[in-house]
Amino acid sequence: MQKHHRSNHGADNHRSKEYWMYGTHAVQSALFNQKRTIKRLASTHPAHLPTLFTAQARKRRLTIEQIDASLLQKYAPGAVTQDILALVAPLTEPAIEEILPIDDSAPATLIILDQVTDPQNVGAIMRSGAAFGAAAVVLTDHHSVSESGALAKAASGALDTIAMVKATNLSQFMDQIKKDGFWCMGLSHDAKDTIGTVKLPAKIALVFGAEGPGLRRLTRDQCDFMVHLPTLPPIDQLNVSNAAAVTLYEVRRQQLLLAAK
Amino acid sequence: MQKHHRSNHGADNHRSKEYWMYGTHAVQSALFNQKRTIKRLASTHPAHLPTLFTAQARKRRLTIEQIDASLLQKYAPGAVTQDILALVAPLTEPAIEEILPIDDSAPATLIILDQVTDPQNVGAIMRSGAAFGAAAVVLTDHHSVSESGALAKAASGALDTIAMVKATNLSQFMDQIKKDGFWCMGLSHDAKDTIGTVKLPAKIALVFGAEGPGLRRLTRDQCDFMVHLPTLPPIDQLNVSNAAAVTLYEVRRQQLLLAAK
Repeated sequence: MQKHHRSNHGADNHRSKEYWMYGTHAVQSALFNQKRTIKRLASTHPAHLPTLFTAQARKRRLTIEQIDASLLQKYAPGAVTQDILALVAPLTEPAIEEILPIDDSAPATLIILDQVTDPQNVGAIMRSGAAFGAAAVVLTDHHSVSESGALAKAASGALDTIAMVKATNLSQFMDQIKKDGFWCMGLSHDAKDTIGTVKLPAKIALVFGAEGPGLRRLTRDQCDFMVHLPTLPPIDQLNVSNAAAVTLYEVRRQQLLLAAK
Repeated sequence: MQKHHRSNHGADNHRSKEYWMYGTHAVQSALFNQKRTIKRLASTHPAHLPTLFTAQARKRRLTIEQIDASLLQKYAPGAVTQDILALVAPLTEPAIEEILPIDDSAPATLIILDQVTDPQNVGAIMRSGAAFGAAAVVLTDHHSVSESGALAKAASGALDTIAMVKATNLSQFMDQIKKDGFWCMGLSHDAKDTIGTVKLPAKIALVFGAEGPGLRRLTRDQCDFMVHLPTLPPIDQLNVSNAAAVTLYEVRRQQLLLAAK
């Protein structure tokens, strides 16, 4: 029986799976991430790439291979590649202890996604998370997403700036971070309290479920409190990435207010 | 030379184009919209549909045709149909005067999208707009989106609850609504003021550009003021639907605060 609240088995399995990343922001961010292994870079017009890009490639001793447009489409079928491809290895997923502030009293935000499976949504959430200063996106090991070109593109560079952590058992994971001082706030359209009227704790984990099923029972039970967004009928739910963006913004807004005092 | 600030020519062209709508929320919302013409309804298991759904279909004297799964995929290729299809006619786009509150002093929110072309994003924005009480989404006539199955699905019912208005000349349109008492607030990552620190006017138009190009020069010049979101480097821009959700939330938050006073 597994006793740890998370394992790296999933990560180990994924680690060997190289994939093609594409899009200017995604590949540029990967190039500047020292922890990112990049095997190859390719473009139909290497000379047209931004200097920042080519200079960093040179620094990492990577040649930008010139390829045909047909190959670009082969390696990133149907995708908007912005004429840049990188063959990369997935990042090693950090343990949660590695990414939290050492100062235990410092504010910190985590994003927990309970079986959200759409790479577009997860990517957009990583992007909003990075933009609003969250420390990590925590995903379930199963019924979840792994690194891919689509995820990297939707994250628009955030895949290489915000940590992605996989939890084998989300409920145990939440138990653990609560012991570390985090408050778990779940989002659900049937919650009584409205976000924006509640003073948020400095160490907070924002917990979102997939659209439709929402939070699983055990996940919801682990939440310290639940909130809903101030929506009007008949539309009472946003797309999950939009709900996450709004919640992350509210956290950041309250942090800025406190800091200004 | 066109003297009106908007025309319905685009709308007239689109009006005749029936299309297949799919997804429970989208089709259900269409069924309850008296202004929506529905030509046919189809499902592989009509008997399995929710009662609310079948009762409303009966009320509108629509039979739910039983079809093969292969036909479902033919009419909505690659889409998550949730086993319901509706052949619909696009709505008649209202003039802006038809959808604003009659009471000139009442709060009102408009969303203006300057050449945003991705139906996923526009759909998600319609959904957030409806959820946070905006009166309409205003789109450019060209370099924009029209009603489609993908748009309806992403809007998750909001296509039939929030007005979609097309403006031939966005700059002239903004000029017009400013005369009607609206303040135009543009979003741009290089703006000086941060949203959340600025008191927002009761009648406000939120103006968003496409990712990458952002607002066009003329559109930006028509804005009364510009704001940015409180993002942290290196990620200084959100996905446009996430940026819109955050901005709409902030408008709603301030309205609720005022109402509570």
